[in-house]
Amino acid sequence: MAIGLSANPELLPVPGVQLGTAQADIGARSIKDNTDSNRPKAVKDDLALVKCAASTAAAAVFTQNRFCAAPVTVARRHLGQCAPRALIINSGNANAGTGRAGLNDAEHTCGMVAAELGLSAQAVLPFSTGVIGARLPMNAVQATLPRCVDALKEENWLAAARAIMTTDTVPKGGSRRFDLDGVPLTLTGIAKGSGMIRPDMATMLCFAAVDAAVDQAILRALLQHAVENSFNRITIDGDTSTNDACVLMATGCADMSAIIDETDPRFEVLAQNVDFLFSHMAQSLIRDGEGATKFVTIEVSRAASKEDAQKLAFAVAHSPLVKTALFASDPNWGRILAAVGRAEVGCLEISKVGIAINDVMVVASGERAATYTEAAGQKAMSPAEIRIKIDLGLAAASATVWTSDLSYDYVKINAEYRS
Amino acid sequence: MAIGLSANPELLPVPGVQLGTAQADIGARSIKDNTDSNRPKAVKDDLALVKCAASTAAAAVFTQNRFCAAPVTVARRHLGQCAPRALIINSGNANAGTGRAGLNDAEHTCGMVAAELGLSAQAVLPFSTGVIGARLPMNAVQATLPRCVDALKEENWLAAARAIMTTDTVPKGGSRRFDLDGVPLTLTGIAKGSGMIRPDMATMLCFAAVDAAVDQAILRALLQHAVENSFNRITIDGDTSTNDACVLMATGCADMSAIIDETDPRFEVLAQNVDFLFSHMAQSLIRDGEGATKFVTIEVSRAASKEDAQKLAFAVAHSPLVKTALFASDPNWGRILAAVGRAEVGCLEISKVGIAINDVMVVASGERAATYTEAAGQKAMSPAEIRIKIDLGLAAASATVWTSDLSYDYVKINAEYRS
Repeated sequence: MAIGLSANPELLPVPGVQLGTAQADIGARSIKDNTDSNRPKAVKDDLALVKCAASTAAAAVFTQNRFCAAPVTVARRHLGQCAPRALIINSGNANAGTGRAGLNDAEHTCGMVAAELGLSAQAVLPFSTGVIGARLPMNAVQATLPRCVDALKEENWLAAARAIMTTDTVPKGGSRRFDLDGVPLTLTGIAKGSGMIRPDMATMLCFAAVDAAVDQAILRALLQHAVENSFNRITIDGDTSTNDACVLMATGCADMSAIIDETDPRFEVLAQNVDFLFSHMAQSLIRDGEGATKFVTIEVSRAASKEDAQKLAFAVAHSPLVKTALFASDPNWGRILAAVGRAEVGCLEISKVGIAINDVMVVASGERAATYTEAAGQKAMSPAEIRIKIDLGLAAASATVWTSDLSYDYVKINAEYRS
Repeated sequence: MAIGLSANPELLPVPGVQLGTAQADIGARSIKDNTDSNRPKAVKDDLALVKCAASTAAAAVFTQNRFCAAPVTVARRHLGQCAPRALIINSGNANAGTGRAGLNDAEHTCGMVAAELGLSAQAVLPFSTGVIGARLPMNAVQATLPRCVDALKEENWLAAARAIMTTDTVPKGGSRRFDLDGVPLTLTGIAKGSGMIRPDMATMLCFAAVDAAVDQAILRALLQHAVENSFNRITIDGDTSTNDACVLMATGCADMSAIIDETDPRFEVLAQNVDFLFSHMAQSLIRDGEGATKFVTIEVSRAASKEDAQKLAFAVAHSPLVKTALFASDPNWGRILAAVGRAEVGCLEISKVGIAINDVMVVASGERAATYTEAAGQKAMSPAEIRIKIDLGLAAASATVWTSDLSYDYVKINAEYRS
C-alpha cells in the first residue's frame, strides 16, 4: 500500500560512509523445516555492508524484548568493546531462536567482515532480519561478502535500503542537508519494517549517519531523544520484535570541531534535524505497514501528565475495535471513547473528554457532540490520512502516536504467509 | 461459529426466580443517526424481566471502564440502597454515551418495573446491551413491559438467554444440581457477549441464581472468586466494555439455614459449583466469539508469581501475530516466544522456557525443541481446540487464560457491520 510514500526516496551520500550490497539468497537457503515463512517473493540483494571512517562515533538502541536475536546480543557486546567501523546486515533470516549456534554464526560473520576490511571483529556490528528459528546459511554469506566489499561506495544508500527489506513494499529513508556554523552537513538514514508490527519477522532496522563530528555520549543522547519521539511512538499491534535495532553514526569527516556538550548551540540544530528525519522514517514504517490502508495520527492533549497522554494514545492505537472501524471508515466514536475509558491512566474524567476526527468534533463533554452528524463523521473518516484528536480537558501534557488500521490484508499477510 | 456449543443449553428452573420476555424492537427503534451499528438481524424478544423472591440476596460486579453506561451507574447505586427484587434487561441499545438523559431513562425504566410489580424503584436493577450513543426508545419499553410481566414464570431461562443476545449466535448458559447437607439445590446462569471483545456493543452480561440461602457478604465473596477465575480470564482483543455486568442471586427458597460464614463446610461445595458454572459460561463466550474458529487455552506454569503467570498468559493471548497464526493453523513458535519475551513480568529467563502445542513440544530451553518437526507442529495446530502450555521453569505459580484466534470474520464483523 505504502500510503503517500515514494518508491525511490532521495538518499544523499554522507562523507565517511560507504555501502555495498549483493545477493546471497539467504531467505531461500534458510527454509527447510523452520517454523516461519517470510519467504522472499522477489529476487533482490539481501546482504548489505556499511563501512565508516576511522573518525566515526556511533550509538545504537536495541529491542527490549527478552527473547532477542543472536545479532542483537553480539552487536550490544561489540558496541561496548570499541567504536564500530562496519555494519553487516542481512535480510531473509533473523538468526533468532538459534541458541549458542546462532551466536557463533553472528560472531563468525563479524570475523569474516573484519578479515575482508582489515579490522578487529569487535569493530563490526551484525544485524539480521527475516525468518526465526533457522540457522544462517554461512557458506552463502561467506561467498557473497567479497562482492559487497567490491561494491562499497558512498552513493549506495538506496541499494542498501532495498537490501534490508523483507515484506516492505518500498525502500524507506530520507536525507537532510543543513549547516552548523556555516559548515554544510548531510544526514541520511534508511529503515525497514513496520515498527512493532511483526516481531517474528525481526522487524525494525534503522541506520543513519551524518558527517558531523560528535562526541559519543552526545550522540547517544541525540539518538535516544530521536527514537523516543519517533520509533517509540508508532504501533501496529503492540508487538515488539526480537531484532529491532537503530544505529546513528557521526563520521566526523566534516571540517568542524566536535560537539562535546549539549549546551553547544550546534547541538540543538543537529538534534532538530535528527528528530525530523527519524520522525519521517518512523511514519514511513506505518505508511508501509502490513495491510495498512490508513495512516492515523492520534494526538492526546490536556492530559494530567506526559505518561498518561502516551498510555492513553497507545490504548486507542492498540484497540482492534478502533482499528477495524478505521479500516471501515466508520466514525465509531463509541469505540474510541471506550478505549479511552479503559486506558490505565492516573487522571481521567470522561465528562471532560472531547474527540475530533479530522477536525470534525464527534464527542464533547464525554457525549456525542451536539453539532455532530453521521454524514460529517463519514466524510471525516474517508481519507487515507486520519487525525484523531483527544482532548482530556485536565492539564497541559500531550503526546502523539502514529498507527494504522486493521484490515483483511493484515490478517492475510500474517495468517497466510505460508501459502 | 460457536465452537462445541449446543444451540439449546438445558437451563433448569431455580425456585424463587421468574423470568418473562417480550419483543420491543429496541434495536430498530434506536437507529436514526447514531454512530454504532449493532443492528439486530433477526426479529426476537429483546426485553427480559427477572423477578425474584423477597428472601433473595444478590451480589454484582460491573465493568471497570471509566466510560460506563447509564444502567451500570444506576444499577451500582440501587444495589447500595436495598436488596434487589427485579432485573430489567434490554438488548439492542446500550444506553451508553447518552449523558444525563440516559441516566434519567435508566431510572425511569426502573420506576416503570417497580410500578408494575409493586416494588420501590431502588429494588430494580437495569441492564442494557447494544448500540452506543442512542437514547432508549422509552415508549417501546413502556408498551412492552406489561407483556414481560404477563410472561413471568420459572421455566423461562432459555427465553431470557435468547432475549439478551446481540451478535451472539447461540443462547449461552448452564445449570448445576447439587446437594448441601442433603438439601437439593439448583444453580442456573445465562450469559451473552464475548468477554472483552466488543466494548461498544456493551458486551458481557451474566445473570445467575441459586435457591440456596446465603448471606449477602458471603455471596459477594463467591461471585468475586468465580469471576476472577472465569470472566476475568478470557480475552479476545483486550478491550473492555462500557456495560459489562455480572449478577449472582441466592433466593433462599430452599429449606436450609443461611450460609453466613466461609468456614461453613457448605460454602466450599457451593463455591465449587458456582466456579464451575461461571468457568463454563466464560468459555462459552469465547467459543461464540466474533469470528472465532479456534478455542484456545493458554496455560502458563512454573512462573515466579501468580501475577507474572497471568500477565504472560494475557500477553500471548492478546498478540495479533499469535492469533493470526492460530487462525492459519500455523505452529509459529517464534511468535509465541516473542510474545513471551515482551511480557512485562518480573522474572523471565528465555533459556528456561518450554512451549508445547496440544502436547507437541515445540520449544525447549528457549530454542526450537530438538524433537520438533514441522509436520508434528502442523498437525498439533489443526484442531478447533488448542492448548498452548508455556513452562517458565522458574517456580510454582501458574495461570490459565482462554482466548480465540483472529480471523477474517473478526475484521468483517467489526469493520463491516454497517453494511
